[in-house]
Amino acid sequence: MAEYNIAVIAGDGIGTEVVPEGIRALEAVGRKFDITFRWDEKDWSCERWKKTGRMMPEDALEGIAGHDAIFLGAVGWPGVPDHVSLWGLLIPIRRVFRQYINLRPVRLFEGVRSPLADRKPGDIDFMIVRENNEGEYSEIGGRLNAGTAEEVVVQESIFTRKGVDRVLRYAFDLAQSRGKKHLTSATKSNGIIHTMPFWDERFQAMAAEYPDIRTDQYHIDILTAHFVQHPDWFDVVVGSNLFGDILSDLGPAATGTIGIAPSANLNPEREHPSMFEPVHGSAPDIAGQGIANPIGQIWSGAMMLDHLGHANAARAIVTAIERLLADGGPRTRDMGGTASTREVGMALADLV
Amino acid sequence: MAEYNIAVIAGDGIGTEVVPEGIRALEAVGRKFDITFRWDEKDWSCERWKKTGRMMPEDALEGIAGHDAIFLGAVGWPGVPDHVSLWGLLIPIRRVFRQYINLRPVRLFEGVRSPLADRKPGDIDFMIVRENNEGEYSEIGGRLNAGTAEEVVVQESIFTRKGVDRVLRYAFDLAQSRGKKHLTSATKSNGIIHTMPFWDERFQAMAAEYPDIRTDQYHIDILTAHFVQHPDWFDVVVGSNLFGDILSDLGPAATGTIGIAPSANLNPEREHPSMFEPVHGSAPDIAGQGIANPIGQIWSGAMMLDHLGHANAARAIVTAIERLLADGGPRTRDMGGTASTREVGMALADLV
Ligand SMILES: CC(C)[C@H](C(=O)O)[C@@H](O)C(=O)O
Ligand SMILES: CC(C)[C@H](C(=O)O)[C@@H](O)C(=O)O
Repeated sequence: MAEYNIAVIAGDGIGTEVVPEGIRALEAVGRKFDITFRWDEKDWSCERWKKTGRMMPEDALEGIAGHDAIFLGAVGWPGVPDHVSLWGLLIPIRRVFRQYINLRPVRLFEGVRSPLADRKPGDIDFMIVRENNEGEYSEIGGRLNAGTAEEVVVQESIFTRKGVDRVLRYAFDLAQSRGKKHLTSATKSNGIIHTMPFWDERFQAMAAEYPDIRTDQYHIDILTAHFVQHPDWFDVVVGSNLFGDILSDLGPAATGTIGIAPSANLNPEREHPSMFEPVHGSAPDIAGQGIANPIGQIWSGAMMLDHLGHANAARAIVTAIERLLADGGPRTRDMGGTASTREVGMALADLV
Repeated sequence: MAEYNIAVIAGDGIGTEVVPEGIRALEAVGRKFDITFRWDEKDWSCERWKKTGRMMPEDALEGIAGHDAIFLGAVGWPGVPDHVSLWGLLIPIRRVFRQYINLRPVRLFEGVRSPLADRKPGDIDFMIVRENNEGEYSEIGGRLNAGTAEEVVVQESIFTRKGVDRVLRYAFDLAQSRGKKHLTSATKSNGIIHTMPFWDERFQAMAAEYPDIRTDQYHIDILTAHFVQHPDWFDVVVGSNLFGDILSDLGPAATGTIGIAPSANLNPEREHPSMFEPVHGSAPDIAGQGIANPIGQIWSGAMMLDHLGHANAARAIVTAIERLLADGGPRTRDMGGTASTREVGMALADLV
């Protein structure tokens, strides 16, 4: 009997509505596969910030450093500056725990209407590997002549060889493990002339070590166009923090809804806990109504099981999602249905 | 009788194939509207770089500073590093001539198959206003410990109040002049915490001056998703150099093909010549075959006429494009046809 200690950060908005459904599905699959979870629930959120001035306690991360994983809902709320909510919680967790891989599957399921014409399930099925610890997201920068007509604002992007190589390595290995052996790199070396040519150089250097992998690279502008016009071209796509972020909202949108998209923030060395969260945010516009799609959270739970070594249990959840969608099971409004978050969560828990 | 002195830079690849068709259409419309062009053709290109080590002569820009406009095809070729070809030609022109607005219409025409399901002509019809002189595209940055395991590469994004305000001003004024009075700003202030919150601040400050314009803003990740799921939401979209670049490939892709998308690099004060070029690049994969779509170049010619004060002549070209597409006229391969570049160009010249 496997037993895991999971830090649960439901966070804000619909995060608090979808996380219980994620837990429900994990409990259900746990009963079948003899896996026990201890859920260590944390109230780290914008709510907490309003009361205490901090998104999480000062010793928060030490407190969960020994946990097996982190299961997160969504963070952010109107009136709380993003750089407070996100740089006070989400981004420190990704960095302190060296979750330098953000893995995001993109898949068109049977039974789901894609905004793209004439795309069938199976046509779209790829993985985005996003760099998650450095790059365009940095605290380095600031303002000169703040508040005057001469104001100048500077932001540094910082790419290290270590940081670039490790995400590329992960992406090449992932491509190696899949049938198509095809890896695409997102770049913009024609416009961003220091960091992106460096990214390309490292990509090409590593490609030489993987002669059986077919590689290509596209500038991010035309790559977004290809995501819409030729989503069937892709198998594994690797990108920087910003480019991976963009592609992993665009990809799921092209497959129907961001509401089902999961993500894994991985520390591949397993020296620190990894974190699993849906791609969607806290969605203030629909929060509190119980209508959010829980599938992104539940699928993130499957990615967590996979990471913990329970591939079969993970597979059971994904199969349940496939069946629910293909068989016309209950679905939330973003997928054209009328079901509540809870109804979808219960139906999925029954199917696992 | 109006007479204009136009610098023509066909550039590389399909640039040399579509520019003559752009000229053909402009000549045709000129005959009708009594406009004469003097075409001052320049061989500035990667070809030239290979021979002379420079994309253009040292005094190139002084030589065309007094011209009425620049009509450009495409720049870039395999084997010539992008930062040579683009930073040796395209980007200096945009900057030296203070073309700080890059204006890019996105429109779904009748008779064009969009990759988006269920979208009709009229559903998609908006303008992208891209900042074109600063931001994420900068020469500032470099490498530490180059070539070693400790390599660190830094790239600066630089936003000035002057640079941000003038592009926002242009976008607000453009939105003001259109029926819907709706302006959307692309941001990423949750991840890029110096420049993007500044961009948002300036956007909000200026919005207060335009009380009758409805404004909204989206992070670039979800904005790309909305371009696919809700392209009908947009009227004018303003973004930084990088975000505008991405959106203006994605938008045209969603409307069927990048081959028809035009752009205007504008110096609104008319102190320097503005430049008109299609959104597509030199397309080495199809260059030399005479099959490139000339419509992006021709429509760019219409934007040039508009800028020169000939709104009716510009309208005549756009109407010809509308008719060609709606009536099943010849079309190139990217639009599902078999016509050559020249056939499409001749058909359009006949229609204007
Ligand atoms: C070629 C490249 C530098 C250029 C840009 O990014 O500005 C192009 O993509 C464009 O959109 O005009
Ligand atoms: C909330 C935001 C900072 C975050 C990001 O950009 O990383 C989100 O968009 C994501 O993709 O996880």
